[in-house]
Amino acid sequence: MDRSRLEAFSDGVLAVAITLLALNLTVAGPGHGTLLHQLGDRWPAFLAYLISFVTIGIIWVNHHALVGNIAVVDRRLMFINLILLIFVVLIPFATGTMAQYLTHGGMDSSVAMAIYAAVFEGMSLGFAALILWTLAPGNSIHPVPVVRHRSVALRFTLGVFIYLPAIGLAFISPPAALVVIGLVAVYYIFERTPSPGPASEGLEDR
Amino acid sequence: MDRSRLEAFSDGVLAVAITLLALNLTVAGPGHGTLLHQLGDRWPAFLAYLISFVTIGIIWVNHHALVGNIAVVDRRLMFINLILLIFVVLIPFATGTMAQYLTHGGMDSSVAMAIYAAVFEGMSLGFAALILWTLAPGNSIHPVPVVRHRSVALRFTLGVFIYLPAIGLAFISPPAALVVIGLVAVYYIFERTPSPGPASEGLEDR
Amino acid sequence: MDRSRLEAFSDGVLAVAITLLALNLTVAGPGHGTLLHQLGDRWPAFLAYLISFVTIGIIWVNHHALVGNIAVVDRRLMFINLILLIFVVLIPFATGTMAQYLTHGGMDSSVAMAIYAAVFEGMSLGFAALILWTLAPGNSIHPVPVVRHRSVALRFTLGVFIYLPAIGLAFISPPAALVVIGLVAVYYIFERTPSPGPASEGLEDR
Amino acid sequence: MDRSRLEAFSDGVLAVAITLLALNLTVAGPGHGTLLHQLGDRWPAFLAYLISFVTIGIIWVNHHALVGNIAVVDRRLMFINLILLIFVVLIPFATGTMAQYLTHGGMDSSVAMAIYAAVFEGMSLGFAALILWTLAPGNSIHPVPVVRHRSVALRFTLGVFIYLPAIGLAFISPPAALVVIGLVAVYYIFERTPSPGPASEGLEDR
Repeated sequence: MDRSRLEAFSDGVLAVAITLLALNLTVAGPGHGTLLHQLGDRWPAFLAYLISFVTIGIIWVNHHALVGNIAVVDRRLMFINLILLIFVVLIPFATGTMAQYLTHGGMDSSVAMAIYAAVFEGMSLGFAALILWTLAPGNSIHPVPVVRHRSVALRFTLGVFIYLPAIGLAFISPPAALVVIGLVAVYYIFERTPSPGPASEGLEDR
Repeated sequence: MDRSRLEAFSDGVLAVAITLLALNLTVAGPGHGTLLHQLGDRWPAFLAYLISFVTIGIIWVNHHALVGNIAVVDRRLMFINLILLIFVVLIPFATGTMAQYLTHGGMDSSVAMAIYAAVFEGMSLGFAALILWTLAPGNSIHPVPVVRHRSVALRFTLGVFIYLPAIGLAFISPPAALVVIGLVAVYYIFERTPSPGPASEGLEDR
Repeated sequence: MDRSRLEAFSDGVLAVAITLLALNLTVAGPGHGTLLHQLGDRWPAFLAYLISFVTIGIIWVNHHALVGNIAVVDRRLMFINLILLIFVVLIPFATGTMAQYLTHGGMDSSVAMAIYAAVFEGMSLGFAALILWTLAPGNSIHPVPVVRHRSVALRFTLGVFIYLPAIGLAFISPPAALVVIGLVAVYYIFERTPSPGPASEGLEDR
Repeated sequence: MDRSRLEAFSDGVLAVAITLLALNLTVAGPGHGTLLHQLGDRWPAFLAYLISFVTIGIIWVNHHALVGNIAVVDRRLMFINLILLIFVVLIPFATGTMAQYLTHGGMDSSVAMAIYAAVFEGMSLGFAALILWTLAPGNSIHPVPVVRHRSVALRFTLGVFIYLPAIGLAFISPPAALVVIGLVAVYYIFERTPSPGPASEGLEDR
């Protein structure tokens, strides 16, 4: 059993989820105020689209690098991957709900933002499980040296430790929680998945 | 003709169907009570999402193992596969309808749960047909030994014999039928598709 | 340039279109009469789902066989394929509209059924163009012998000659037109794409 | 790391986006005037569907040719590709909004058409970045000769220079802007991505 269907199915789910994000971008249509006004009122939807798109995009880029280095595909790996995907599929819902309530204020804004952060927390737990799986002996084509395991694990489970307090932060200030979540996306644009050392095989930036 | 497009199309349909499940997870938005209240009222939708996601996920994992062992792709196989998929595509509809009516009580709850069980029955009939096809001589790369055919057929057509009474159970107690359907999903997380014996090629758990 | 992306993109569009068919299968929910009543009123949606699913499924099976025999992928082929897909993508809309108006009677039923037949006519014109492209010298790996061109062209452009009168028939009797369209689907389950002769490579039924 | 997942994910997003275009093609259903009348009122939706479908189709054809010539896939390329896709995913929204407001007149029509043109501008900037990336030394399998860089860059960033004034034109005449956007699609049906010279490998029309 090779990696191709793991990749194909994951790519399919990621591609559909990232495209469904745009379904939250509707306007009510003629008879509900000027279009500019409607779009202005809906700025949270566009900001939420941007952050969620970039986050799913990064998951795809990192998933790509990670799975490309996997030596063997077993049932356990497939179920770990499904845990990642069960949260990915929730992102369009969490994004839409968050955007609807962001400017609403009060407890509802906090709850909506907490759900958004919690879905990202679940997703990053799934991704962390995937990373830890690849660090186990024999699972990778080009294993990460043991001395680097701790730093790799820290860097790539970082989201786990940031989205969690963001859930709490959502109850103090939903916009602040959104800024934190957005910064994680920016961080991961520049942070790379673990490279296998000298034999980089294009996993590295050039 | 190789297996790649059979896999690609099936992966596509499974990926879209699993992602569309989340379209049932909407809240009415501001002005319909607090968000927490709305989410609380919609707990059946989240439970239904979880059960359906895991079920489709398992179909994918097992489909993966099954098709990876297929020696030849003919038209009959493609149409058997379409029977499986015609029910997979119905899952988001059946899931949404079941979730809408679960707490509604009365005949409507029973009908909705019976439809949910019936769609899963259809899907498992499709999967059973696929299993039986692979047991026919010449159709598998690593054939399951004939002495194990009966046990393999029994284990993998199990869903067929459980979803069917669940349709009836739905008219006595819809929640009980849901528990049964959920247990089938849990069972199949641990049950594996038939392994070809010693030459396992990664089809086995490790 | 190989066939893989032509297949991947076509599979993607076909998979999404076939899955979106189920979006037409919604019920209004609690407070709109009993569920059984709602489902009973919506029987045209389920019938339409079945016919459209089988038709798209057949397109996929035949597309599969056809493209697997293509020797060279050029821009012309890709645009011919896009003509096929532009009508495939219209099928969920045409199916939903037809189902909504089937039992409505009068001119609206006829118009809705005529649109349904017209979308299938467009799709089968796209498929016929694909068939004719493969018959041109040098385009196929295993060319169909010239003496069989006429019969192959006739059999596989059959849909073109049946969906067209079905458009007219829709204005006399919409249900009769639906029966004709359903029979084409049944016919193509048993009719196969042109085989390349003795060197069948699995393109044939076994 | 090879090109296959870059292609698979892009094909997935393009396939879903092109299929979601048809979700804008709904009619209100019985009780909202005759079907012919409803369809007549919705002609902008069908015209918009046609232009957007052809445009996404062309992106796919050209993306196909471009990526097929890429020698190495690095993170930078994947993020450039995501920039292209972030605008592709916006096309169904922009198409639906434009179609809703096209015949509405006044400022709203202009704003809707300007958004439509702006999304296409963003998409063509993403595609131009992809083209420029392939022109850099070492990035292509069959590099375009340096003497042809300027002409290739000009021809394939043409959209960038046409969609931009179309944004402005939308405020003078929305229909005129739509004609210009439609003409770009027609132009790119006939214009091809850069061929690598004599060793064409099927990238050329035949």
